[in-house]
Amino acid sequence: MSFLSKRLMSTIKMKPTPSKAHHHYPLPSSSFPEGFVLGGIHAGVKKKAGVPDLAVILSTSERPTTAAACFTRNAFKAAPVIVSNEVLKKNGGYARAVVVNSGCANAVTGKQGMDDAWAMVQATDGLLSKSYKSSEFEHETLVMSTGVIGQNLPISKIVAGIKSQSAATLGSDFAAWERAAQAFMTTDTFPKLRSRTFTIGGVEYRMAGMDKGAGMIHPDMGPAGTTFSAPKQLHATLLGCIMTDAAVSPKSLQSALTYAVDRSFNSISVDGDMSTNDSIYVLANGAAAKDGAVIDEDTDKQGYEVFKKELTDFAADLAKLVVRDGEGATKFVTVTVKGAPSYKDAHNIASRISTSALVKTALYGEDANWGRILAATGSVPLLPSASTGATPVIDPKKVNVTFVPSDGTAALPVLVNGEPEKVDEVRAKEILTLEDFEVLVELGMEGDGEGEAQYWTCDFSYRVALRSVL
Amino acid sequence: MSFLSKRLMSTIKMKPTPSKAHHHYPLPSSSFPEGFVLGGIHAGVKKKAGVPDLAVILSTSERPTTAAACFTRNAFKAAPVIVSNEVLKKNGGYARAVVVNSGCANAVTGKQGMDDAWAMVQATDGLLSKSYKSSEFEHETLVMSTGVIGQNLPISKIVAGIKSQSAATLGSDFAAWERAAQAFMTTDTFPKLRSRTFTIGGVEYRMAGMDKGAGMIHPDMGPAGTTFSAPKQLHATLLGCIMTDAAVSPKSLQSALTYAVDRSFNSISVDGDMSTNDSIYVLANGAAAKDGAVIDEDTDKQGYEVFKKELTDFAADLAKLVVRDGEGATKFVTVTVKGAPSYKDAHNIASRISTSALVKTALYGEDANWGRILAATGSVPLLPSASTGATPVIDPKKVNVTFVPSDGTAALPVLVNGEPEKVDEVRAKEILTLEDFEVLVELGMEGDGEGEAQYWTCDFSYRVALRSVL
Repeated sequence: MSFLSKRLMSTIKMKPTPSKAHHHYPLPSSSFPEGFVLGGIHAGVKKKAGVPDLAVILSTSERPTTAAACFTRNAFKAAPVIVSNEVLKKNGGYARAVVVNSGCANAVTGKQGMDDAWAMVQATDGLLSKSYKSSEFEHETLVMSTGVIGQNLPISKIVAGIKSQSAATLGSDFAAWERAAQAFMTTDTFPKLRSRTFTIGGVEYRMAGMDKGAGMIHPDMGPAGTTFSAPKQLHATLLGCIMTDAAVSPKSLQSALTYAVDRSFNSISVDGDMSTNDSIYVLANGAAAKDGAVIDEDTDKQGYEVFKKELTDFAADLAKLVVRDGEGATKFVTVTVKGAPSYKDAHNIASRISTSALVKTALYGEDANWGRILAATGSVPLLPSASTGATPVIDPKKVNVTFVPSDGTAALPVLVNGEPEKVDEVRAKEILTLEDFEVLVELGMEGDGEGEAQYWTCDFSYRVALRSVL
Repeated sequence: MSFLSKRLMSTIKMKPTPSKAHHHYPLPSSSFPEGFVLGGIHAGVKKKAGVPDLAVILSTSERPTTAAACFTRNAFKAAPVIVSNEVLKKNGGYARAVVVNSGCANAVTGKQGMDDAWAMVQATDGLLSKSYKSSEFEHETLVMSTGVIGQNLPISKIVAGIKSQSAATLGSDFAAWERAAQAFMTTDTFPKLRSRTFTIGGVEYRMAGMDKGAGMIHPDMGPAGTTFSAPKQLHATLLGCIMTDAAVSPKSLQSALTYAVDRSFNSISVDGDMSTNDSIYVLANGAAAKDGAVIDEDTDKQGYEVFKKELTDFAADLAKLVVRDGEGATKFVTVTVKGAPSYKDAHNIASRISTSALVKTALYGEDANWGRILAATGSVPLLPSASTGATPVIDPKKVNVTFVPSDGTAALPVLVNGEPEKVDEVRAKEILTLEDFEVLVELGMEGDGEGEAQYWTCDFSYRVALRSVL
C-alpha cells in the first residue's frame, strides 16, 4: 500500500471484469424442493448492519432426512468441520438442519471454537424441536463457518440470531432461498443459488442449493504501532449446501456426493489453495417421494445412477459459479484432458494445468501458449496401472493441444501429434479474447477407457498481486 | 497490452527491486578447478550481436573424467536431455565435455531436434580429439539448451561456433569462466558463477560451476494479421553445470549429485512450474587428485560424505542465486519445516508452502499471514510410515509457526502450540520488510528423526501478472 497511492491505483485501467449480471437470479421459485424452510439474517458477525451473515436451513419433511458431507482434507480442520463430521457419524447419516455463518471461520480457535460450533448446533436443534417435530437424535444439525481465521465467533450474537428464527420467520419461497444464499457470502460479488428438477421412476423431484466462493483476500492489519491479539486473516473457503426432496439412503447419498464432489468442487481452481473449512453438505428429505420409495444403489441401480448424474451436474453448476466469481478472474476456462490411462491421471493433469501460474498468466495475456500447457501436462507423475503395476509413459508424438471456442465456431489445433501447428494468429486471438473457452489436451494413451476429466479454472490477472497490498 | 498504455505502466511505481550487485562476481580466479578450459561466444542463436549464447566446457585432465546428471522428470523431455542421457548411459558415467546454448531450447522439435542435439555433441567431441587427447568413447559430450520452445536450433551457426573454438581460444582464467556463465543466460539479470575449495584426505580440491534461472516470460507474437509458423514461446528452464578437480567414481558421483540436487535445485521455487529442459551436470576430472585416489562411497565412506556435503552446499549456493534472480521476485524467503515424520514429508510441506500463490502474495504484501502458511501445510498428504504402514496425522496443538529475521535479531513466534500469539505488529513489519527472512514451521511430530527440510522461494509481485501482458 505504501508504494502505490490510491490515485495511482485508480489510473491503472483494469481489463473490465466481464458482466456477471446474467449469473445472478435465474431461478423460478416454483422449482425449489418441498419440505425445506430457510432464513438468512444479519446476526452481527459482520460489522455492516443489515448484511446477512447467518443462514438456517431446516427440513420439515415427515420422512427422515438423510445427509452426507464432503469435508476439506486439510490437517488443520476448523471446528465446524470436526463437529459436523461427529454429528453425521453418530447419527449414521441423518441430519435435518444446516446452520451457516459468514464473517468468521471459527478456524484455529482451539477448545472455545469447538464449544461455539456445538452451541450453534444446539441452538438450531432447538428450532427443530420447538417449531417442528422432535427427534430420536441428540443432535441433527450440521454447521459451517467462513471468514476470518484465528478469531472466536461472537457466539452470543449468533445463538440469539438462531433463536430469533421460527416457523413464522422461516420461509420456502424464492426470497427465503435468496436470503439464505446471501448469508453464505464473504467476498463473493453475487449470491450463488441454483435449482433443477429431475425424474426417477416417473416421480418428479427437485434439487436446489447454494455455495460461496474462493478468493485471495489480504488481512487488514491495524495502524502501525498498535498491537493486535489476532490478526484479521480472511481466507478462501468453499462452502456448499444442496437440498433435495428425493428420498435417498444414507450410504447412497454419501457415495453419490463423493462422486459428484470429485467431478465438481474438486475440479475447480481459483488460486490453488485448500482451506481449513471447505465443506459440501447434501440433505435429502423425501418430501416428494412416494411412500416407501428410497433411492439406493443396491436395490435400484438405475434410479441411483440417474440421481448420481443429476447431483454431479448440479454440483458442477454450483462449482462453476465459484470460478466465474473468482477474485481477479476475467476468464472462465474449461480444461479437458482426454486419452489418459485413468480418470485419476486425467484429473491430476487437468488440475496441474488449471493451477499452473504460468498457464494462468498466459490465459490472462490471451496467448496461445501451448508450451506452458505441455510443460504442466508433462510434470504430472502418472499412476502405476491397477492391472499390470507398470507406470505408463506419455508418448509425446501422440499428444494434441487444441483451443476450443465457446461460441460453436471451429476449434484451433496448436499442437498435433506432438508437432507445433502453423497457427493463424488472428484466429487464435479471436478465441482467446472470449470470456469462455476450452483447452483440450489429448494424450492418445491406452488405459481403462475412463481417462477423461474436466477442470474449470480462471486466469491470473493483475488483481491477484494487487490484492496482496490493497 | 491493449488496455495498459506504456505511459500508464511507467506511472505504476514498482517496489524497487533489491540491488543484486552483491550477488555478481565475488570470485577469486585462483579457486577454479584444475584441468578445465572454457569458452563463451556469440554464435548467433540470439539476435543481439555480441551477446554470448554458446558455452563450451572441456576437461583437459590426464585422468578419466566422470560425469553425472539430474534431468527434468517432465514427460516432454527436450532433445538435449534425451541425447545427454544416452551418452552418459552408454559411457557408464564418463564424459569430458559440456556444450550449452541459450536462446533456443530445442524442445518439442521432433526428429530434427534430436539430429541437432547430436550435431552439437559431435562437433564438441571433435574439439576434444583435435585439440586434446583422443578417447575410447564414441561420444563424450553432454549438451544443454534453453530458450524458445517449438523452434529448431540454427544448427549450422552453432556447429560453426563450436568448431571456431580450440586450445587457443578456450581458457581457464576468471574471464573464461565468466564468459561461459554469461552464455547460459536467458532472462537472467546476472551470470551465476560460484567456486569453493575443500579438503579430503589432506588434499585440497576445487569446485566451480554456473547455472541459469527460471522466470516467467511472455511470448512475443507478431503483429496482428500475420501468420507465424511457431509462436515464440520462451519458458523457464534451470540449467546448471558443476566442475571439480577431485576424482570420484561414476556411481558415487551420481549418488552424491542426486542427494545434492534434492536439497538444492529441487528445493527452490520461483513460479512452481517444471520445464522440459531442466538439467544439472557435474564433471569430476581428478586433475588435483593423487595417483590412484578416487572418492567412492564403498571404499572411503568418510571422504565420500565430505564430498557429498560440499557438493550439496555448493549446489544450494547456485540454486539460491536462481531464486534471488527470479523474475518478479523482491524477497528471498527460506521455508524451513521441522518435526515432520520424514525428510520427504518435510520436503513436500516446504514445497507446498513455497509454491502457494496465497503465501507468495502475502510475502509480497509483507503480511504475517500464518493462516495461509497453516492452510498450505495442512493440505499436504503425509506418507505412510515406512515401518508401520500407518499414515501419520498432524496434531494441530503441537504446531508452531515463527518468522525468523536474517539480521540475527530475535525471532517472532506467530503461532505457538496451535494457538495464535499476540503479535507485535511493529516487530512483524520490521522482519517482513527485510529482503531475506525465514518462515519456520515446526510440526512437533515423531518420526524417523530426519523430518527436516528447507526450501528457498520468492514472493509473487505485480510483475508476475504484468509479465503476461508486457
